[in-house]
Amino acid sequence: MKSFHFLALLSLALAFSFASAFDPSPLQDFCVAIPEPKNAVFVNGKFCKNPNLTVAEDFFFPGLNVPGNTGNRVGSNVTLVNVDKLFGLNTLGISLARLDFAPDGGLNPPHTHPRATEILVVVEGTLYVGFVTSNPNRLFTKILYPGDVFVFPIGLIHFQFNMQRPMQLPLLV
Amino acid sequence: MKSFHFLALLSLALAFSFASAFDPSPLQDFCVAIPEPKNAVFVNGKFCKNPNLTVAEDFFFPGLNVPGNTGNRVGSNVTLVNVDKLFGLNTLGISLARLDFAPDGGLNPPHTHPRATEILVVVEGTLYVGFVTSNPNRLFTKILYPGDVFVFPIGLIHFQFNMQRPMQLPLLV
Amino acid sequence: MKSFHFLALLSLALAFSFASAFDPSPLQDFCVAIPEPKNAVFVNGKFCKNPNLTVAEDFFFPGLNVPGNTGNRVGSNVTLVNVDKLFGLNTLGISLARLDFAPDGGLNPPHTHPRATEILVVVEGTLYVGFVTSNPNRLFTKILYPGDVFVFPIGLIHFQFNMQRPMQLPLLV
Amino acid sequence: MKSFHFLALLSLALAFSFASAFDPSPLQDFCVAIPEPKNAVFVNGKFCKNPNLTVAEDFFFPGLNVPGNTGNRVGSNVTLVNVDKLFGLNTLGISLARLDFAPDGGLNPPHTHPRATEILVVVEGTLYVGFVTSNPNRLFTKILYPGDVFVFPIGLIHFQFNMQRPMQLPLLV
Amino acid sequence: MKSFHFLALLSLALAFSFASAFDPSPLQDFCVAIPEPKNAVFVNGKFCKNPNLTVAEDFFFPGLNVPGNTGNRVGSNVTLVNVDKLFGLNTLGISLARLDFAPDGGLNPPHTHPRATEILVVVEGTLYVGFVTSNPNRLFTKILYPGDVFVFPIGLIHFQFNMQRPMQLPLLV
Amino acid sequence: MKSFHFLALLSLALAFSFASAFDPSPLQDFCVAIPEPKNAVFVNGKFCKNPNLTVAEDFFFPGLNVPGNTGNRVGSNVTLVNVDKLFGLNTLGISLARLDFAPDGGLNPPHTHPRATEILVVVEGTLYVGFVTSNPNRLFTKILYPGDVFVFPIGLIHFQFNMQRPMQLPLLV
Repeated sequence: MKSFHFLALLSLALAFSFASAFDPSPLQDFCVAIPEPKNAVFVNGKFCKNPNLTVAEDFFFPGLNVPGNTGNRVGSNVTLVNVDKLFGLNTLGISLARLDFAPDGGLNPPHTHPRATEILVVVEGTLYVGFVTSNPNRLFTKILYPGDVFVFPIGLIHFQFNMQRPMQLPLLV
Repeated sequence: MKSFHFLALLSLALAFSFASAFDPSPLQDFCVAIPEPKNAVFVNGKFCKNPNLTVAEDFFFPGLNVPGNTGNRVGSNVTLVNVDKLFGLNTLGISLARLDFAPDGGLNPPHTHPRATEILVVVEGTLYVGFVTSNPNRLFTKILYPGDVFVFPIGLIHFQFNMQRPMQLPLLV
Repeated sequence: MKSFHFLALLSLALAFSFASAFDPSPLQDFCVAIPEPKNAVFVNGKFCKNPNLTVAEDFFFPGLNVPGNTGNRVGSNVTLVNVDKLFGLNTLGISLARLDFAPDGGLNPPHTHPRATEILVVVEGTLYVGFVTSNPNRLFTKILYPGDVFVFPIGLIHFQFNMQRPMQLPLLV
Repeated sequence: MKSFHFLALLSLALAFSFASAFDPSPLQDFCVAIPEPKNAVFVNGKFCKNPNLTVAEDFFFPGLNVPGNTGNRVGSNVTLVNVDKLFGLNTLGISLARLDFAPDGGLNPPHTHPRATEILVVVEGTLYVGFVTSNPNRLFTKILYPGDVFVFPIGLIHFQFNMQRPMQLPLLV
Repeated sequence: MKSFHFLALLSLALAFSFASAFDPSPLQDFCVAIPEPKNAVFVNGKFCKNPNLTVAEDFFFPGLNVPGNTGNRVGSNVTLVNVDKLFGLNTLGISLARLDFAPDGGLNPPHTHPRATEILVVVEGTLYVGFVTSNPNRLFTKILYPGDVFVFPIGLIHFQFNMQRPMQLPLLV
Repeated sequence: MKSFHFLALLSLALAFSFASAFDPSPLQDFCVAIPEPKNAVFVNGKFCKNPNLTVAEDFFFPGLNVPGNTGNRVGSNVTLVNVDKLFGLNTLGISLARLDFAPDGGLNPPHTHPRATEILVVVEGTLYVGFVTSNPNRLFTKILYPGDVFVFPIGLIHFQFNMQRPMQLPLLV
């Protein structure tokens, strides 16, 4: 079946997260990133592909329907789709990610994106999320259910935690 | 069951779309928008809530698990979560949307976001998508399946079209 | 005579148009663009000339007093002075253009500048101009005469159309 | 006659000048400025008109075909069309001006626009123009004739001077 | 004597720190902040003083020669000169601070400025400073002596620590 | 002694000045500048060091405790710490300087920073400072003493002048 299996286990939380980086505005319709050559020089940002050679595939990346492996110490996995994977994102100031959480306590530990706001939509599961303001330090938290959207303002320390217990019974989806 | 029913019909395409608007950078940790008062003055952007009164709910919006009604002329529906609905998005330069498409030909017709790049992830169905560059006019198109991500650069005219035939048999999800 | 013959025919409309692109701010007093070398790499924007070799001519472009050839399908001509012709414009976020319209119906067809606002001053003739807002779609139009200024906000679809009938009698200017 | 009389005297130089200010990007399709109310508060920029009440005239300003009065000490006149006169320019980062110069020595004295690059097109006459770089101070100058375009990078001190002698004989235009 | 006594004790470390916030560019020469009125509305940034009433004192703040009180739990004090104290800083994207450290272990604990880079010059004492990159987490540290300058990039978690032992003998300066 | 000798002569004024340039936002945690290679190409800004090779020293510059030589025509010296000396400053939009003034009349003559606001703290001496607004030209001046802070908005012409008389008697510091 070609459908999108979001969940092997109901207790596995899934969220899409979208972060907007501070890119300089594009100066062309697009500036598709190219891999750095060996002995490369580096610039603030990325070098670009010859725009005349650009194709639709440069704006494409597949596979976000594949669950990430949460079998690690923190019990969470981030599948990031940024300019390093989807080259057409270069200069456009946006990226996205799939977050998978192991049952009962998978954690995306406190961290910060210095140059990006994060907006999150819960697809499956129950997440406890929060962020801390910079000065003074105030904590904002909320429990999120499927279909809930939450925003983490740029540069603030934040976390996501899977509250959901593992299921007793196998699920068919 | 508390899960996320993405699909009543397999042939109904669903996509999340995320757009990054040109907001001025935040000058505080956040600047939660407030509704315009009557006889309002307007500014470039939004007035803000007293930051001391801000709560976690200001960064929250529920209900994106509810399918939009595609029973209209074009057979598509955009459920937009922007600063007008999720007030904490103000000044953060990002918003998101759920797109639902009616079976066999639901169309999000050609349009442009003058101040936003759009990144799209297909959750369910098969979409034919494309955009046109500004000068000269070149068309880039691609067929997308679940898990596929596609980016529409800022300001370019673009569209999405549901290629999927209606199902002959009822589906259980 | 060295003067500026704006008009061979009174019915030929002429307009200057000035567009402000989203360039990153300059990081030097200037960064004069250089042509891309063969086998070139590309960056977001342009490579620059050694600033010590910059001369006044780098900030100069002649010939906007020469009418453009409007003998084409749409009956209009855009003589663009942007960074590709006036190299000193690089990083400064502005360009300008001369628009010539054939008598009675010369048209600059609907189009959009994804990264620029356009401000137009009518030098000669009568133009019918307009633009469409992005969401919802509202049309704003106006008839413009010599000395009139009109602004087309960034990213909105817009057009200009020459309303003037050809003259019955030869004109001396 | 409806034409555009650029010149009462051939020796009167005329130039259009276009400056791109550092406006924050628009957050709507437009944000038409409104006059400050009495006892007004001020913001960085301008308050805006209710977007639902916006009309095409908000994007319009007439009269740039009228020569400015150069009968002053420096022999030059700047007719500025900025957001204070053309309210629709608000947040769009661009403005324009007509410069008139008295014969034989009309001068737009050295000055700087701290937040704008200036691009100039000579319509009539002969101008001696220049700017000075910031560190070290290098002077760039050029003599401009009709149809010539010159750019003065943001923040640099610059001037324009009318080189043309008054005509001995009356001119008919 | 009117001079600047930097140090009562050699072992008290003093540093100036300067942070550049992400302000929107000024749209006037300046936009001096005014205190928020009661029942105030809030905007992204600050309301401004009538520019015609601006005086030199609006760009002035005294007293950075006064040591801050380090008699607190962490043994450090930040005397911040930002837009809340020096109103003319509004929209200009910069602020500064005096940092005083108690002898032998005064600490400015790990924190982050989500919208500012910090540049620090050590006036007196010996500081151990560092920051952590965002992804992956790498720690950069250095010991700084008087006259040393160090930069903490925007949004990265950083700290400063006074390494200097208290002096055994009184010092005359 | 390892202390910071700010002053050989009380009459020698010393100030720290900090200017915030318009850099594009960083797209990485940092982008340490590298010297331009011979036969170099130039970009808007600087090429960067391989981020994996970055070390703490890249964010460091020593020696601001050394007085500058004011034995020149204007009797002032600017020791600038910008991206050309402290490579880690690249893309971070800030720099700093030590200003030394000769007794009785050392002058930092009127000049402008087209892309930077300047904030100044007086460490020693008495300075007469001022700036001129752009349109119309209004002069703002103030006498500053140690510990005083003053801000010069971006792009405005400004100056600093040492008001202090030379001392009659040798000073011990």
